[in-house]
Formats: sequence, structure tokens, C-alpha cells
Amino acid sequence: LAGISQAAAYPEFEPRGRLHIDAGFHDEDNVDMDDGFLNRRARLGVGGDLDELWDFRIEADFAEEGVSAADFRLRRSLDVGRITLGQTKVPMGLNQLTSSNNITFIERATPQNIVPDSRRMGVFYDVSEGMFTFQSALYGRAIGDDADGDMPLGVAGRFVASPELGGGQILHLGVSAAYEDFDSDSDYRTLGFSDRPESRPAGVRLISTGDIDADSTTKYGLELAYIAGPFSAEAEYVNVDVDRDNGSDVSFDGYHAQVSYVLTGESRSYGSGGFGGISPQGNGGAWEVAARYSHMDLNDRDIQGGEQDSVTLALNYYHSSNLRFMGNVIFTDVKDSGAVSDLTGGETDEDSPVTFLARMQYNF
Amino acid sequence: LAGISQAAAYPEFEPRGRLHIDAGFHDEDNVDMDDGFLNRRARLGVGGDLDELWDFRIEADFAEEGVSAADFRLRRSLDVGRITLGQTKVPMGLNQLTSSNNITFIERATPQNIVPDSRRMGVFYDVSEGMFTFQSALYGRAIGDDADGDMPLGVAGRFVASPELGGGQILHLGVSAAYEDFDSDSDYRTLGFSDRPESRPAGVRLISTGDIDADSTTKYGLELAYIAGPFSAEAEYVNVDVDRDNGSDVSFDGYHAQVSYVLTGESRSYGSGGFGGISPQGNGGAWEVAARYSHMDLNDRDIQGGEQDSVTLALNYYHSSNLRFMGNVIFTDVKDSGAVSDLTGGETDEDSPVTFLARMQYNF
Amino acid sequence: LAGISQAAAYPEFEPRGRLHIDAGFHDEDNVDMDDGFLNRRARLGVGGDLDELWDFRIEADFAEEGVSAADFRLRRSLDVGRITLGQTKVPMGLNQLTSSNNITFIERATPQNIVPDSRRMGVFYDVSEGMFTFQSALYGRAIGDDADGDMPLGVAGRFVASPELGGGQILHLGVSAAYEDFDSDSDYRTLGFSDRPESRPAGVRLISTGDIDADSTTKYGLELAYIAGPFSAEAEYVNVDVDRDNGSDVSFDGYHAQVSYVLTGESRSYGSGGFGGISPQGNGGAWEVAARYSHMDLNDRDIQGGEQDSVTLALNYYHSSNLRFMGNVIFTDVKDSGAVSDLTGGETDEDSPVTFLARMQYNF
Repeated sequence: LAGISQAAAYPEFEPRGRLHIDAGFHDEDNVDMDDGFLNRRARLGVGGDLDELWDFRIEADFAEEGVSAADFRLRRSLDVGRITLGQTKVPMGLNQLTSSNNITFIERATPQNIVPDSRRMGVFYDVSEGMFTFQSALYGRAIGDDADGDMPLGVAGRFVASPELGGGQILHLGVSAAYEDFDSDSDYRTLGFSDRPESRPAGVRLISTGDIDADSTTKYGLELAYIAGPFSAEAEYVNVDVDRDNGSDVSFDGYHAQVSYVLTGESRSYGSGGFGGISPQGNGGAWEVAARYSHMDLNDRDIQGGEQDSVTLALNYYHSSNLRFMGNVIFTDVKDSGAVSDLTGGETDEDSPVTFLARMQYNF
Repeated sequence: LAGISQAAAYPEFEPRGRLHIDAGFHDEDNVDMDDGFLNRRARLGVGGDLDELWDFRIEADFAEEGVSAADFRLRRSLDVGRITLGQTKVPMGLNQLTSSNNITFIERATPQNIVPDSRRMGVFYDVSEGMFTFQSALYGRAIGDDADGDMPLGVAGRFVASPELGGGQILHLGVSAAYEDFDSDSDYRTLGFSDRPESRPAGVRLISTGDIDADSTTKYGLELAYIAGPFSAEAEYVNVDVDRDNGSDVSFDGYHAQVSYVLTGESRSYGSGGFGGISPQGNGGAWEVAARYSHMDLNDRDIQGGEQDSVTLALNYYHSSNLRFMGNVIFTDVKDSGAVSDLTGGETDEDSPVTFLARMQYNF
Repeated sequence: LAGISQAAAYPEFEPRGRLHIDAGFHDEDNVDMDDGFLNRRARLGVGGDLDELWDFRIEADFAEEGVSAADFRLRRSLDVGRITLGQTKVPMGLNQLTSSNNITFIERATPQNIVPDSRRMGVFYDVSEGMFTFQSALYGRAIGDDADGDMPLGVAGRFVASPELGGGQILHLGVSAAYEDFDSDSDYRTLGFSDRPESRPAGVRLISTGDIDADSTTKYGLELAYIAGPFSAEAEYVNVDVDRDNGSDVSFDGYHAQVSYVLTGESRSYGSGGFGGISPQGNGGAWEVAARYSHMDLNDRDIQGGEQDSVTLALNYYHSSNLRFMGNVIFTDVKDSGAVSDLTGGETDEDSPVTFLARMQYNF
């Protein structure tokens, strides 16, 4: 049969999905938290190729009540780089850009949840050549976030250099920035920055700025990561500057640093300026231990959003590249928080809970 | 090509779906009911195998407004039995555990809707060996039912013996029990038991306890079924005991009994402690006639939820194992019902409507 | 291998989906409009054959917030024609019946959005023989539109003759009518007719009758279309008569006319009484220019819903039969509109915005 070539039949489809179910238990301090199960992500969708150059993805999330849009996009490969139309992630934050299937801890570090923008509709261009990656976006609002007034307009860019240091070592250096402008008559200008204590089942947000009227925001992020065989580390700093409608500018920042070691020897995969997952090499699966420190400061001028420090210890078991079980213990310290003050009826603005979090996760 | 073995490519996928559309017309008595169509179930999802031992399912329901989660789960085959993680059915009630694709009547018997818990998130273990089946669950809340406070914690078990009596006769004997504990500070502790008159389009619930504050509930169920060729019968009793926060315990119970005869000779399939469907053997499809009596008592102490007796006559046509048309006539008698009293502005606490219900159904 | 026949494996499945994302910018006149992106349609579903005669479709729409049902149906091929059960489109309006993947302009003409009923649950029968097509429906409410009271009952019919005139020319002549009866005690009887200015991102409706209590509605439509190679034209008139509960009957009507020319020479496909899409023949894709005029009058007796005239200029690029980029400029003139009066705080009842609308669209 040599010599017979077969044309691919387009469109080509692949089912896409993931199920992440969590169980959380809390050693409460001052604020009541909810113990129990949470359906963190349940995504179903389809991806594929329309032809040699164009590919697509539509993936919806059915976690708990309602539906939300993950990637709803069209993408074209160019001679140099790729252009994406529709909704996908705004390029900011190594941890934010890592797929939820591949993040080392059950939740992303709080600064990465608060500052980068996650998914938005827009036009995106990215290119990876050798050790360099460049990503950019011109973006508006997110699907489902349809408020009155003209949509905000944002522009973002990220640049990564990832030299190989020899012996399989990879160094990752990244920088990103985003500017978003809010129309003076739109409801989109009312912002708020807040996060749960790196546990979703908890059901409370211990730090929160409340509503802020913004003319624009300017964000930037710095990324540092390193891989050497089974060892990997990442550290990031993010900052957001809010140009307020009434009142002086306010600025919030945060950072996290983490280390991970795969006991069974596998290496965390890396490519195109970001982390992938871990693929067990033996029949017994892979075991990973990791630790993270994160810090977020939502206090500035008249805004007392709170300051949060978290230390997380993690143990992960990978049955295969698409089936994982995770355990986290999270020590949280919150102080100077108006949110905690509200939640405790003014008794205190500090809270120091310990969270025990487990996840079962598969994806395809 | 002999000698060449082919490894299965994992993950293996199969699309899953069902569409159940009803038309209901009511000969009303005292309470107004809605005539018309209802999109009873529209499910889409994916199931499959992650490898030889692990399989998964994510299936969402788009009936009418919104989305709800059906089975969202991961399952592993063990040397003896299977363990399931995520959301699936709590093991109680033969009729409740029978797939909606395979129930003999358009709706399950009212006691089976009211007392067993349907789907919850948790850890499940089941095993079938020869004529015995054992199922168990440690479970919390359902996906989408995310209230304030710690989640309830439940434990349930079901045991079935199904001896073959010779000549293809099968006898099914089952018993199940469930205990659920509610945290004193949670919103989950507010329970209510109610049901529609075995017709969804009707749009009203003729029996309802209203809200009850519960410390815990204890439930048990008894199952009896029998298959002899085209004839089958099932009878069940269920009871729920509510340990109230304020006030004495209350207890509600109900039962149903039904017989079915497949005129074209096919037999209702049975396995692993439960009923499957009917697969027509001839080109003309299969015809089934059936009758059911159900009784539910929601009156106890100070609670006047009502007492409901229903008789249903059914005619089903199976074009194939996955395409079915159903017709039901339902004679309902409700008395001593606070719900009817509310619906009629205090005029009466009795209602005796007749419901004509039809369904078209397919699944894959 | 001659002589070996292979049976098709049923059910046969095909994934179904579409993504339509719009960007809209408005040169406002008196009424504020929203500029920005909109996820207009994001559908995922499954269609297929249950066997040689029965086919099915379940397709849900995840545009912006929530979910809605597109076609949820079962269909059987008969010796003559086809019968459909479930939810699909009521047969009225050539433009309304054309798939959103194949309409020439980004939005359907306003009269086609306002008068025909789009999708409803019911029983449908259609047949196409030679140049004749007949479609009919007995229908109730739409999925998701579940109000109190008995469902309305509608009956609709459409007849099309499409003679070939020689030289590949096709003439399309169509007529349709629908009658819908509303129960006197149901919430379904409260109707309203309104539309956005042929732009969804705008976020406002410039014409609207407000609520009308109806005993019944009677609608009819006239269709004229013509195809000659790369040139095509369509013109339609629709009228709705509302038999009001209190007050005299009111009547609203509208029409649109459009021409399209495919610069690259392809012809708009046509079959079974309706338009299909354009399939580019060359590697460079296909380019189409088009223009449309639409008029809708929602003023009658005491109802001042407004009068809208729209002119749309369009440029479409088809990369392939399932990937298209569209650009529209829409000149809207609204007068005598109570809706505009409400939106401007009584300042004026006239508005003349210009809308710039773009779409990227793929489907499979």
C-alpha cells in the first residue's frame, strides 16, 4: 500500500473535559467557614481543526449552579506565531496561565487569582521561537459579564525567556503588563479585588477591597521559575494600580514562591513559556511534594482590604497524566482586613484558619 | 495478520444523552393544574474509560431553564467490587435506582421521589457476586445545592438477594437504610418533603410538609420484585424519621406496588440488583401494559403535609431499546393536605384530579 | 471484497456546534448604546441516526449567561415526508427559517425576529417533492418558557413553490400562516413585540409594544426570492393580528428586501424551500457584498411601539463553508416610539443611530 496517501478529514474533533471535585475541612479561627464537598470544575467541550491552519475550541463549565464559558475561540497558525479570536486567557502570570489540570496546588496563589484577568474576549497574538515566547492581547469583557455601558478595553503583553542551563536545567524569566481603560458611563468601571483563602469550599473571602470606581487599571507581573529534573520552583510578583474616579490612585501587590519535588523522579513538563503537567513513568504512578508561600496586600490609602499570608504544604499522587489526587494543608494569616471585620461583626480584623483540602481530578 | 494484537487507545469515549419530552392534560378537581408540554430531561455528556480499571462519566441536564448535574464521577474496578468518587445515586430504592430511561411509568412512584436521596457527592462502594448485591455510600450534598454552613454527612447501605427460582423466574429481595446528620449552624438542616401528583407538567405539589428543621434523618426501605418472562412486579416500602431541632420526631412513610406485562413476550432485563429496560425482539417493536398503586402519608403530629393515593394505568411502545413512547392515566386522591388547603385558599384539603400523560423518549 | 456488505452501526453520532462572536460599535443619536463584544451564539450538541428512519438532535446554546435549547427533537422519515417531535422551528418566514450559520446579514431582519415564532415544542410534518415544499406544525410553548397556566396552542403551515427558470435561475414563492390561542387563565397570554436595532451588542430595544393581553394571534407571511448564479435576492412581508382581551384588535406588520452578490462567483445554495450557505470554490475563499432594507411598524390604535427603518450594507468573507467573517454597517431610523421616549426620559421618540458590526463565525 506504499504510495497511497490519505488526506485528513476536516473538521477533526476531540472531546474535551475535566472533573475536579474537592473536599475541604477547616480549623476555624474567628470566621465561620463551610466544611464539605465542592464540584470545583466540570467542563465539557469540543476542540479540533477546521483545516491545516485553523483550529477551534468550545468548552463550557458546569461546576455547581449555572454554566460559564472557558475557552470559546478560533485560532489560526501564521508563518510566525498564531492569532486567536474569541475568549481565551489574557497573557499575565505564569501561575494564572498554567492549566488548572496542571497547577501544583489545589488553588492558584491568591495574588494570581486577584491581579491577572483570566479569560476575556478579544484578539490575541502569540509566538514562540527557541527560548523566547511573546504573547499579546487586545481584549474586552468576559463572556457572561454583560453589564450596562461600553465595554472596557484592555491591552496586555508578556515576554518570556527560558534558557536551558545544561544538564536539563531550565530557567524561566518572564515579565508582563496590562492596561485596561473603563468608560466613564459604564457599569464595568466598578471593580473589586478579593479572594478566598486558597480554598473554595470555605465559602468566604477574608480579604476584599469592596467596590472601587476606576478610570483605568495598570498591572504588571514578574516571573521566575526553574526546573532541574524532579525539582522545580516558581516565584512571581504582581502589582495593580487603580486610577480612581474619585480619590487618589491606589495600588495593591502580592507575590508567591513555591518549590516542588517529584519523589518518583519525573520532571514537570515545560514549553512555550509555561508549565505543563507530570506524566508518571512507572506503573505505580508518580508522587510529588510541594510547598508554597503567598502574600497579598489589599490595603492602601483609605481602602482596608486586608493583608493575607498563606503557607501551603502539598502531597500529590498522579495515577496517570490525566488522573490525579491532591492533598493540601493551608495555614492562612489575615490581618487589617475590613472583610474579616464585617464577617465577625466588628469583633476583630484578623483571622488565622487552617484548611485541609483534597481533590480528585481527571481530564481528557 | 494473525498474531498482531492491538492495544486499546485510552481514554475511550462514548457520547451519552437522553431526551424525554412530555405532554400532560389534567381533568382538574379543586386545584388548578397546567396543561401542556414539558421538556422533562435533556441530557448530554461523555462517559468512557481512562484505562483498564478507571472509568468516568460527566452528564449534564438541560431540561427547561438552567443546567443540573447528573452523574459527575470517577470509578475504579477493584478485585472485589467498585469504588466511585464524585456524584452518583445514593443506594436506596429499587424504583429510584432504576434509570429514568427504564422506569415502567412516566414518573417514579411518589414515595420513591420523596424519601430516597437521588444523587449526592461522596464516596461509594458496591459489589455484586452471584445473586447478592451490596451498595454503600458516604455522602454530602448534591452539586448545585450549595448553602451556607457545613455540609450534611450521610451514610447509606443497600443489600439485595435475587435468587433464580427456575424457569427463568427471578425473585428480588432488598433492604436499604440511610442516616444523615445536619450541622446545627447550616442552612442544609431545613428540609421539606413534597411531590407533584406523579405528573411534572401539572406544575403543582398537592402534598408538602413545608419546612422542617432537622438534626438528622433516618430512612429505610424494603424492596420486593419478581420477573417471570414477560410478567414483572415490584413493591416497595420507604420510611423517613426526622429528628427535629424543636419539637418531637416526626415520621413519614409510603409504598407502591406495580405489575407489568409485555404483550409481545419480551422480558424486563435484570442485573446487579436492579432493573434494566426492554429490548424488542421483533421488527414491530414491543408493547407493554402496566398498572401501579402508590400511597404516601406526609401527616404526623403537627405536620399536615397530606396523604396521597395514586393509581396509574400505562401503555408503552418500544420501537427499539433506546426509543420509547409512553402513555399514562393517573387517578390521584389527596386528603388532609395543608398544601391543597393553601392552593385553594382554604376551601378544601382534598383533591382528586385525573392526569393524562404522554412521553416520547430516546437515549444513547 | 465485492459482495461484502456492511451494516451501519446505530446510533450514528455527529458532533454539532457553532460559535458566533460579535463586535459592535455605535454612532449614537439620542439613545445610549453599548459598544463591545458579544458572544452571540455558542452551541454544542449531538445529532445522529437511531436507525434508517429515525434521527435525533440535542443542541444547547451557551451564549453569555445561562443555557437555552435550540433543536431538541426526534424525527422520522415517512414514505412521504417527515414527522418531527420535540422542539424545532415553527414554519414561518424564509429569513427566520434560514440557519443563523447561513443568513446573509449578522442579524435577521427585524420583522422576521418579531413576527415568526422561532422554536417551539410540538408535532411537525414537512414534505418536499420536486419544486414544492409543505411544512406544518401543531405547537405549544418553547423550552425554558415555563409560565403558570395552560400552555398556548398554535397551528402553522407554510407552502413554497420554487420553479427553476432555466439557466440555473430559481424563483422562490412562499406563503405561511399561523394561529395561536391563549388560555384565559394563563400567564402566556401576556405578549410583547420588540426588537433591537439589528445589533445585539447595542443592548437596547428601540421599538417595543410593551405588554399586551391576547386571546389569540393570527400571523401570515409572504416570501419571494430569486437566485441567478452569484446573484440572489429575497423579499418578505409579515403581519400579526392580536385579538386582545380588553380593547380592540391590533395589527402590526413589516417587510424586508435584500440583494446579495458573490464577487468570487459562487452561488447561494438552495433546497427544500430554503436557503443554505455559500461554499467557496477557490483556495482564496469567497467574497460577498449585500444590501438590505427592512421596515417594521409597531404602532396601532393605542399602542405606540414605534416604527423602524433600517438599511444594512454587508461585506462577507467565507474562508470555507464553515468559517466566515462578516461586516455590517446599519443605518437605523426610528420614529413615534414609546420605547425611545422611555429611554430618553421623554425627550424624544425618534432615534437614528449608525451601527458598525463585525462577526467571526464557525460551525460544524
